Amino acid sequence: MSSSHDLRPAVLIHRIPSFAFPFAHALSPYFTLIDPVHDNPSPDSLLSVRAVLCFGPSPVTVHTLRALPSLEILVVTSAGLDKIDLDECRRRRIIVTNAGPAFSEDVADCAVALLIDLLRRISAGNRFVRSGAWRRNPEGDRLAVRVGGKRVGIVGLGNIGSLVAKRLEAFGCRIAYTSKRRKPSVQYPYHATVLDLAAHSDALILCCALTEETRHVVNREVMTILGKGGIIINIGRGGLIDEEEMVRLLVQGELGGVGLDVFKNEPHVPEELRQMDNVVLSPHCAVLTPESMEAVKELVVSNLKAFFANEPLQAVVPLE
Amino acid sequence: MSSSHDLRPAVLIHRIPSFAFPFAHALSPYFTLIDPVHDNPSPDSLLSVRAVLCFGPSPVTVHTLRALPSLEILVVTSAGLDKIDLDECRRRRIIVTNAGPAFSEDVADCAVALLIDLLRRISAGNRFVRSGAWRRNPEGDRLAVRVGGKRVGIVGLGNIGSLVAKRLEAFGCRIAYTSKRRKPSVQYPYHATVLDLAAHSDALILCCALTEETRHVVNREVMTILGKGGIIINIGRGGLIDEEEMVRLLVQGELGGVGLDVFKNEPHVPEELRQMDNVVLSPHCAVLTPESMEAVKELVVSNLKAFFANEPLQAVVPLE
Repeated sequence: MSSSHDLRPAVLIHRIPSFAFPFAHALSPYFTLIDPVHDNPSPDSLLSVRAVLCFGPSPVTVHTLRALPSLEILVVTSAGLDKIDLDECRRRRIIVTNAGPAFSEDVADCAVALLIDLLRRISAGNRFVRSGAWRRNPEGDRLAVRVGGKRVGIVGLGNIGSLVAKRLEAFGCRIAYTSKRRKPSVQYPYHATVLDLAAHSDALILCCALTEETRHVVNREVMTILGKGGIIINIGRGGLIDEEEMVRLLVQGELGGVGLDVFKNEPHVPEELRQMDNVVLSPHCAVLTPESMEAVKELVVSNLKAFFANEPLQAVVPLE
Repeated sequence: MSSSHDLRPAVLIHRIPSFAFPFAHALSPYFTLIDPVHDNPSPDSLLSVRAVLCFGPSPVTVHTLRALPSLEILVVTSAGLDKIDLDECRRRRIIVTNAGPAFSEDVADCAVALLIDLLRRISAGNRFVRSGAWRRNPEGDRLAVRVGGKRVGIVGLGNIGSLVAKRLEAFGCRIAYTSKRRKPSVQYPYHATVLDLAAHSDALILCCALTEETRHVVNREVMTILGKGGIIINIGRGGLIDEEEMVRLLVQGELGGVGLDVFKNEPHVPEELRQMDNVVLSPHCAVLTPESMEAVKELVVSNLKAFFANEPLQAVVPLE
């Protein structure tokens, strides 16, 4: 498709080769795609690239960025930016856009699903029936915990956290939150620290971005104060939790349960977690619905078109 | 505890012997409990019994009732009355009370949990991670379906159905219902038949009682019109669905998925269901939380006290 007479501006696709890239059809009418997975571009041909589409969890390091001296915009398909060198983008004044709210509904649904699964033991009950154990033991361990009345602490009350709160209010949960700062428009009780929130919660739901400030924001102290009945749901990033400590506390029975869509070192999941009944594991798929994929595809195409037309962008990440 | 000088009125406990009966402590300060599991009462001693507490899924047949000629009240701990001979109770003017709304929140939560589990493939994803398949195949089949926007048809908009609707509205689902008659105070679209509701729904949630009118209310025709992508959630009674037909349609790929807490012949679950990824199975535990158990215990004690004190009863089942 690329030729010297091609007027379509060049967009470099940055992705993990094993990941399928379903956006090519939507982009190629407007852009000349340079996809190193197929095209093997020379380093020289990258010197003039102004726009990169970063698809999926592909790290954008300072080395990636150094190979692209003309880069002006990095269009990222994920919500999280923990694999992007934002300091370098800031220094070079590269615009970064992300998924914005395109995934928020699906991620919030996943968080709520994991919490209710743990409280009501849906996956555990499913295993009990599938294994034939119910038939052998009709009065087996089937007792769960009511959802209503539970004190749910939301860590990070952005798009996703707010949608989680809305859903859980309909179940009669009592919502509180922590966030970089108190949100004046929100009526839920605010706690200044995750530790204080944990001390007043039956469950924590991690809805914040992974940054240097939030790495291991759920540490041993937070999990200990959450306690034997306490539940943690993580749909943010694995690095938000001290995973080794979490596994240790679960093994020792000092934490009630966890529902995880994200892990420290995906797709590696600690073996101990895969054996426990009070653990629900999800293969980092909170955003994986056709509806989310369609929404982010539209956002990405729209942002790249807007960039080359000098028009306003959506979902720009504030870097200052 | 029973003696001729005992002034506590007699209450006969009617239960399946293998089921634990945790209410004895709460009842015995007020009543002389006759529990055939322990007491082996003579048929004669039953002739004067005025009150029976029916605990769990214990059938109350015309034969049970004939042995109790003085029976005036049947206090049932379940919500469903499909194992009670209500015709005979009506004929003999025996008052029947049930669990009323004591279980409604928990059952509604279970229904929503089963629906979201199916749409978002929570249990399937959990199996994928636990089995180690995710590690071997990081890009394996993880695509789910968005909850928001789904058309959910509620069959029976009573206590439970209304709470299901309230929860699913918070997820952005579009609610419609069928019921014996249109409810003037409800704004959701009404369909006069289950078939018509199914024709306009992505998922059906069965929240009605099992009666002669509702037996197999979900038949082949309803399931066929619901179609390949259609989902059925059943937290009512197994007999609401033609189970053999449902299994056949699932095996043939002509029904999208099912989430079941109840079955035709519990604890027997058809083998085919235990093998499918688009099926979530729950061991009839929708009501089994400490909170529900406590609420129904209070209701039962209160109703038996009220009966013997000639005071108003709660959760009386209309039999006319």
